[in-house]
Amino acid sequence: MSSILTPSVDALVAELARLPGIGPRSAQRLAFHLLKAPPERPQALAEAIQAVVENIRPCTECFSFAEGDLCPVCADPRRDPTVICVVEEPSAIVSIERTHEFRGRYHVLGGALSPIDGVDPEDLRIAELDQRIERDGVTELVIATNPTMAGEATALFLADRVRDRLRVTRLASGLPVGADLEHADELTLGRALLGRRDI
Amino acid sequence: MSSILTPSVDALVAELARLPGIGPRSAQRLAFHLLKAPPERPQALAEAIQAVVENIRPCTECFSFAEGDLCPVCADPRRDPTVICVVEEPSAIVSIERTHEFRGRYHVLGGALSPIDGVDPEDLRIAELDQRIERDGVTELVIATNPTMAGEATALFLADRVRDRLRVTRLASGLPVGADLEHADELTLGRALLGRRDI
Repeated sequence: MSSILTPSVDALVAELARLPGIGPRSAQRLAFHLLKAPPERPQALAEAIQAVVENIRPCTECFSFAEGDLCPVCADPRRDPTVICVVEEPSAIVSIERTHEFRGRYHVLGGALSPIDGVDPEDLRIAELDQRIERDGVTELVIATNPTMAGEATALFLADRVRDRLRVTRLASGLPVGADLEHADELTLGRALLGRRDI
Repeated sequence: MSSILTPSVDALVAELARLPGIGPRSAQRLAFHLLKAPPERPQALAEAIQAVVENIRPCTECFSFAEGDLCPVCADPRRDPTVICVVEEPSAIVSIERTHEFRGRYHVLGGALSPIDGVDPEDLRIAELDQRIERDGVTELVIATNPTMAGEATALFLADRVRDRLRVTRLASGLPVGADLEHADELTLGRALLGRRDI
């Protein structure tokens, strides 16, 4: 972006353009939107950003986002500490919580194994997971890493380490609900066949 | 969005989702990006937003964005005050400045006439434009309102008021440079025909 308008506007456009999926044109459109809005709106956005910078830290138990020491899930005594769902990032927790099908706790690895990208086991929060498994008498590990190469490798790595001590499960792969067989890719359809169930 | 994570994160997602073109999923993705980034980045974004809220006001001459009384164009003595390009919004100024083809000044109407939406002449900055025309001895008005129904109506309205006193021009309508005739819509192609030039 050129400095056609004013330095403050240019600076805002530059900051917005650093966000993922926001190109220079979108950044300019967002900046103009904020400039045209009543000042309470950009003010509220700036304050919301400041608030997360100041308040949010990793949950000391599961490494999801927390405002105190514990995230809302770890702070909830009704959640079963003996079943842990392992995810790569906190965003996966939001998706799983929306299903209302899981009543255990979570553990955020902070990524997935990918030696080619230099992500080795010691770069993930695996030691912390081991401690929780020991301390809380975990009986089941639900591995919900992404169905990608790295996510699958991580799932196998974790399963191999603990399957002698506890039940290890993996989210099912298969056809998305509502999907059309004709448009399913071969890998997904292959998984759906391998994972077929009696009805 | 449910309050699955923490109140601060939920509040940030809600504020981001108010931005145009940002749905709840994108807002969540942006919030997670800001949470994962080094704290300087969200801090810089919050400060850039605060800065525009505090520093930006309408240019007292042309009603574009200014940090002092005048926008950079109106403050530049090399810009010709006798040629005024009339736009609906400041964003159009950025687009026109990028062409480096215009050396006059601008006037931001603040919208386009649209009686159906309740936008009448007195809702636009037309009286202020009249004052500038008188005071600066304007010789040409380049009307660069959008090529939409409302923009065209506004252009005609303005032209009818001043064409006895000064030259009034309108940006050409026609085929975008690099476009394919096969994909041009009929209205644009019709305009291109009507506006054909000798070569």
